[in-house]
Amino acid sequence: MRIEDMVFISVDDHVVEPPDMFDGRLTAEHADRAPKVVRTSKGDDVWTFEGEMIPNIGLNAVAGRPKEEYGVDPTSFEEMRPGCYDVHERVKDMSAGGVLASMNFPSFPSFSGRLFLRTEDKNLAKAVVRAYNDWHIEGWCGAYPERFIPMAIPMLWDPELTAEEIRRVSAMGCRSLTFTENPATLGLPSFHSDHWDPMWRALVDTGTILNVHLGSSGQLAVTAPDAPMDVMITLQPMNICMAAADLLWSRVFKEYPDIRVALSEGGTGWIPYFLDRLDRTYDMHHLWTGQDFGGALPSDVFRRHFLTCFIADPVGLQLRSDIGVDNICWELDYPHSDSSWPHAPEELHAMCEKYGVADGEMNRISHENAMRWYRFDPFAIRPKERCTVGALRQEVAGHDISIRSFDTGRFERSVPNLAELQASATA
Amino acid sequence: MRIEDMVFISVDDHVVEPPDMFDGRLTAEHADRAPKVVRTSKGDDVWTFEGEMIPNIGLNAVAGRPKEEYGVDPTSFEEMRPGCYDVHERVKDMSAGGVLASMNFPSFPSFSGRLFLRTEDKNLAKAVVRAYNDWHIEGWCGAYPERFIPMAIPMLWDPELTAEEIRRVSAMGCRSLTFTENPATLGLPSFHSDHWDPMWRALVDTGTILNVHLGSSGQLAVTAPDAPMDVMITLQPMNICMAAADLLWSRVFKEYPDIRVALSEGGTGWIPYFLDRLDRTYDMHHLWTGQDFGGALPSDVFRRHFLTCFIADPVGLQLRSDIGVDNICWELDYPHSDSSWPHAPEELHAMCEKYGVADGEMNRISHENAMRWYRFDPFAIRPKERCTVGALRQEVAGHDISIRSFDTGRFERSVPNLAELQASATA
Repeated sequence: MRIEDMVFISVDDHVVEPPDMFDGRLTAEHADRAPKVVRTSKGDDVWTFEGEMIPNIGLNAVAGRPKEEYGVDPTSFEEMRPGCYDVHERVKDMSAGGVLASMNFPSFPSFSGRLFLRTEDKNLAKAVVRAYNDWHIEGWCGAYPERFIPMAIPMLWDPELTAEEIRRVSAMGCRSLTFTENPATLGLPSFHSDHWDPMWRALVDTGTILNVHLGSSGQLAVTAPDAPMDVMITLQPMNICMAAADLLWSRVFKEYPDIRVALSEGGTGWIPYFLDRLDRTYDMHHLWTGQDFGGALPSDVFRRHFLTCFIADPVGLQLRSDIGVDNICWELDYPHSDSSWPHAPEELHAMCEKYGVADGEMNRISHENAMRWYRFDPFAIRPKERCTVGALRQEVAGHDISIRSFDTGRFERSVPNLAELQASATA
Repeated sequence: MRIEDMVFISVDDHVVEPPDMFDGRLTAEHADRAPKVVRTSKGDDVWTFEGEMIPNIGLNAVAGRPKEEYGVDPTSFEEMRPGCYDVHERVKDMSAGGVLASMNFPSFPSFSGRLFLRTEDKNLAKAVVRAYNDWHIEGWCGAYPERFIPMAIPMLWDPELTAEEIRRVSAMGCRSLTFTENPATLGLPSFHSDHWDPMWRALVDTGTILNVHLGSSGQLAVTAPDAPMDVMITLQPMNICMAAADLLWSRVFKEYPDIRVALSEGGTGWIPYFLDRLDRTYDMHHLWTGQDFGGALPSDVFRRHFLTCFIADPVGLQLRSDIGVDNICWELDYPHSDSSWPHAPEELHAMCEKYGVADGEMNRISHENAMRWYRFDPFAIRPKERCTVGALRQEVAGHDISIRSFDTGRFERSVPNLAELQASATA
């Protein structure tokens, strides 16, 4: 398959919320107390809410920056690529990157809406979460329904309210919920308790997928306080591996066989080993631990319940059949520093060539699995021939994708520009 | 290659220390205060030392037990297979299992000798560690020098003393040191500090390998207090992955290019993904984190410094070239519950057939890599033709390897017995 004929849906990107997101979405009682962007005396833009200040508004929003500056977060909206927070610019960046559609995780509330867990006035928290989800579904995704898979944030402090919210947003067409990979690390009852049963029921009833993003428990694998940043970056997918083991051996899938969980930004190359390890653990130990999946092996259970995804993962592609080709999606991770935007299609295509990935498998991984798992059909709105890498890039041929420095704001050097990408795709 | 012609050296097994180990090895001043085995009123044998009691003397010493009873630790020496603590019986069990030689980690002092870190009287601790190492090298390994790779325990509380001990045991022919996979979790300075420099120097000077066994930091990956045991078992290799990242990005290999580290019981199937992740982390981030390996990639650094091992790991065997065949050893893990004793050779041979492992590769993995990395040459003592699975099993043809119950002590059911193993090997 030629790059320009591929179709890409990313199941893990990030929105930087714009300052006006709550305008008109809260009653007078709560509007004054909504989260607000304020500019500090140092010129930084920060979100404030109930006495808390959430700094680093960009949360690693480094798309379009030179790699030398990846450690530096933008501190104001002006320093950010508009595609981070402006949906119209975002869609142009997606098109320039050859990406048809995208699912966006929240930024300032944290991946799982953890911010609102700390809010004392739970009526306020509830109103703000609902307003957030309304904005995300109607304001952000609703502007281009064929370009976004909407995803809601939960009311972490209350499984009944979370269930209610799942049902409410489901009626708005949203069948995806972001959640923490491990509630126990947040001081909440674990996945092994029955605390979350109302949520599991609502997820099953509405066919909603639970998405656990790495880092969503607020704990990343850290070895020592003085360990270099590279250690933490290398180990990021490990939290997800813990979440997968935790959920897999829990009561959840046994009691709710229709639950589906996406391991967001978890990578895939570790999974074949993990599946072996699961099955060996079962084989060696189930007779005394009492684990029972009704005759199935843990690896079967994994494939039944987990959707995985990768940014760039040669081992995962090579061993795709051991993972299950129907369980693998692709992600862009825009605008974070692990992203290969805007040349991700070129990266994936080259890996697929290297490992002899057939066209049918490539389609499943690049977009069909995402459409099926999330029940998302962009082709109903936009004809498929206008959804390809080539067609999308054609539409935004003049869009600026140059790399700019934080420090100088000036153009620094070029990634392959759109014309070059087009040329190499048709070569 | 036929099973009976293979040669096996295991780089990770465990000794359960016998009660008389310190006899005659301490001065009068310390002999009375040496660790001692006492029998409790409940009939359990426990080690006691300086007011501490170390229960579960068997530490999962379940070799030869039915799987239904793996959760139950033996509580007295009588309940244990004598091969756990009696070197003559151990060698017979090794022969029955087709294993030529073995490296044994400690039990009651913990994998890294953590017990002595807590000892207030450091003169006593020093004397006991030296006596432990003397017993291990002379008493245990010395009884059959062609059957054991000796390994010392460190004086964790003092890098200078550890360095001194490395040099002392090196003169006794011991070039292997067990250590913690992460000193920071024990409240000690991390691998990123210069605290351990005397130890690194002594390791380099004597050509001694540092062995970090999973769990040696005293912390295993636990998701929640109420998580089932299966979660912890599944995730055990994750600590090792953390240790590998921690050491790899640290100053250690940059400052001491001859250091070699064995990732004991770490498995291998996660490594190809891990190497990709390391290189991608380097590619995306080194320009701002400042990591510099003199032009080498982190994956090169990994292969230069790390020895890996596996019990049974299909993915690791399949991707052996991505790991580096010269970096892979095999382990038996006797007498722990992950071990496939006594039919481990059959297990490995079947996997090698499945993944087309050539005879030369099989030899490197089953014994040659261990001989080279640990500079251990059993063939100088025992002619190679007497070191094979077939020859060893022949020597102990009458040895009892039946499975017995803890509860009843009676024979419960059979694993393939020696005659059957011989028959299948020659078939």
